Amino acid sequence: MKLENPTPIDWKFSVRAEQLQSSAIREILKVTMRPEVISFAGGLPSPATFPVERMKAAFDKVLSEQGKMALQYGPTDGYAPLREFLAKSLSTPTSTILPEQIMMVSGSQQALDLIGKVLVDEGSKVLVETPSYLGALQAFSVYQPQFESVDTDEHGLIPASVAEKGQGAKLMYALPNFQNPTGRTLSIERRYELVETCARMGIPLIEDNPYGDLCYSGEPLPKMLNMNPDGVIYMGSFSKVLTPGIRLGYIVAPVPLIRKLEQAKQASDLHTAQLTQMVVYEVIKDGFLEEHIPTIRALYSRQCDVMLEAMNQHFPASVSWTRPEGGMFIWVTLPAHMDSKQLLDEAIAQNVAFVPGGPFYANEAEKNTLRLSFVTVSPERIHEGIEKLGKLIKAKL
Amino acid sequence: MKLENPTPIDWKFSVRAEQLQSSAIREILKVTMRPEVISFAGGLPSPATFPVERMKAAFDKVLSEQGKMALQYGPTDGYAPLREFLAKSLSTPTSTILPEQIMMVSGSQQALDLIGKVLVDEGSKVLVETPSYLGALQAFSVYQPQFESVDTDEHGLIPASVAEKGQGAKLMYALPNFQNPTGRTLSIERRYELVETCARMGIPLIEDNPYGDLCYSGEPLPKMLNMNPDGVIYMGSFSKVLTPGIRLGYIVAPVPLIRKLEQAKQASDLHTAQLTQMVVYEVIKDGFLEEHIPTIRALYSRQCDVMLEAMNQHFPASVSWTRPEGGMFIWVTLPAHMDSKQLLDEAIAQNVAFVPGGPFYANEAEKNTLRLSFVTVSPERIHEGIEKLGKLIKAKL
Repeated sequence: MKLENPTPIDWKFSVRAEQLQSSAIREILKVTMRPEVISFAGGLPSPATFPVERMKAAFDKVLSEQGKMALQYGPTDGYAPLREFLAKSLSTPTSTILPEQIMMVSGSQQALDLIGKVLVDEGSKVLVETPSYLGALQAFSVYQPQFESVDTDEHGLIPASVAEKGQGAKLMYALPNFQNPTGRTLSIERRYELVETCARMGIPLIEDNPYGDLCYSGEPLPKMLNMNPDGVIYMGSFSKVLTPGIRLGYIVAPVPLIRKLEQAKQASDLHTAQLTQMVVYEVIKDGFLEEHIPTIRALYSRQCDVMLEAMNQHFPASVSWTRPEGGMFIWVTLPAHMDSKQLLDEAIAQNVAFVPGGPFYANEAEKNTLRLSFVTVSPERIHEGIEKLGKLIKAKL
Repeated sequence: MKLENPTPIDWKFSVRAEQLQSSAIREILKVTMRPEVISFAGGLPSPATFPVERMKAAFDKVLSEQGKMALQYGPTDGYAPLREFLAKSLSTPTSTILPEQIMMVSGSQQALDLIGKVLVDEGSKVLVETPSYLGALQAFSVYQPQFESVDTDEHGLIPASVAEKGQGAKLMYALPNFQNPTGRTLSIERRYELVETCARMGIPLIEDNPYGDLCYSGEPLPKMLNMNPDGVIYMGSFSKVLTPGIRLGYIVAPVPLIRKLEQAKQASDLHTAQLTQMVVYEVIKDGFLEEHIPTIRALYSRQCDVMLEAMNQHFPASVSWTRPEGGMFIWVTLPAHMDSKQLLDEAIAQNVAFVPGGPFYANEAEKNTLRLSFVTVSPERIHEGIEKLGKLIKAKL
């Protein structure tokens, strides 16, 4: 029984959906899946760091001991023991984080979507760094805000610019550690000034921290969350310290906001898989991350050094770049007249890929910028790819 | 370093979030977690049906053989072999479904959210059954539609009412098999008429089908999807035939809509866990569901019989109820003057729980209705609970 010659539907999308676009990165990634391509485009962590055996043992244990519970519907705010564990690890002597301030989500990207859903109306002013994380711009843009780009310099976001531009803002979104895309880190002094400015102006401050643990030396800088737990919305993730494919992250926020976010999550996907949360708790509860994270830091630090060295060798003097102290990315600024999108076309023709900087800007894009990731490519291929890029750039001078 | 006496934030939620409420069901579930409560309130499948050992073996196999890939970021539209498998099982001799018409989601609830996000503007007319699935009302309401309740009778939705009320509607949402909350099934003739009406009026028709496989006898009725693949948005789920806690479902839709839904999913949570999809594929690829589903049908059918028998015995003649041919729910209509919410308070005092019917109505609620689930309670306790309910109702006559 089938309809004959039905009138085809003339799809009319919602206003918010009309302006949705596929992420430039994911589109580039499709092109660069070919094994011969040296891709610096990905934001993917290195699979060499995934503790597969440990995860496998944990799945086995949880399913053997609490299988029926793990596979049943679960609470929207998440698995209680994991939330308690996180609350404890996020607390400091002067700032206690409680489990009821924490909600588990299906990866940080969902945190961004839920925050947008719950706080942003059409035309709401949303402050972002210049440049900012593409995935955040994409998540918020669905709710049709007015983005205001906060000024930055080589040390990252300038808090005074928030004071100047932030009047009436609904949100300030910041990624203070080894920022995606620039690799920059915000100093303690600037963090404090930013927290203070946002509190004074009544602007909720989002601290997105997926890379914070990946510092190459020393200890991570203090979290803005702990400077003002009543005014900061903190986002954490297991994607970069464990594995991204399990889709597990969390939001920490004042209780009235967490309860509203919980309602929004209930309407969005009921809850995040209980099994995943129980497995991650099983993996990390006895301190595994404390031995595991240093191995990721060491690997990424070595890879970063290789890329920086290759850039020193092959890039012309008119190109500048950041020297990250952690994380996964280097940000490159070409001479002002060059367009990194054009460079990408030429690079792909030579089997090298990166992400052009344009999509990371909420307002006016600096088209002569690009992002390089160094974590999934072997040292030999980093050298080869950077040499090719260097030649292409020199040819344009 | 902590801010001293920061000004507390005066949380202002978005307009869409202001009207968000926690689901009545999940609130009731919190009350009824106590083991002494006989709860007919849950929408949870019976954990006795979860194939825990099979899942455990599949997690072990996938992690052993393809661990790094399973734990890495994955494509937004989902794991290709699973999508191919589903495309094949959804195809009929007269209607071929292609893998590119399918996107995997984190449970059906996410399908509802994404469809709302992509198709519903403030004030858009959305047609729903009277009553309709609460979770759908909740998901869509975030996008501020104007709900129009389509008339129903004891055989479910009346297609002529769609013709009468549907002019200019953005969506028609229907749950044709063993509907949540009524347990009703739409006949083949009505399905065809509904598909034809929606196609003629240019209204995208959502066919939500979480319970379709749980028919107590015979074979599932034909899907509306196969009657008009160009006009129907089909939603499937593994929650009721495998386990709900893994959060895995899928949307089938015409390609232009799937591509837009894919962009929306990318902004919402990037993708659904690859590991989960690979494990489900591993579990079902050789026909496991064909042996497993009959065991669920048999269990639920027995439980349903027990409840219907207890109702015959203990409920007064002025109460009527549905006799479902599958699924998990019975819908009860009390005498017109009774309020099921009041009855719930009295029932909970006697350790019996159910869901009052009110929240399932998009517009005017029939307050004398309620939903009973029979799948997770033992036969003895079903009898005990129904007897108590019967007494409470009789006392109100």
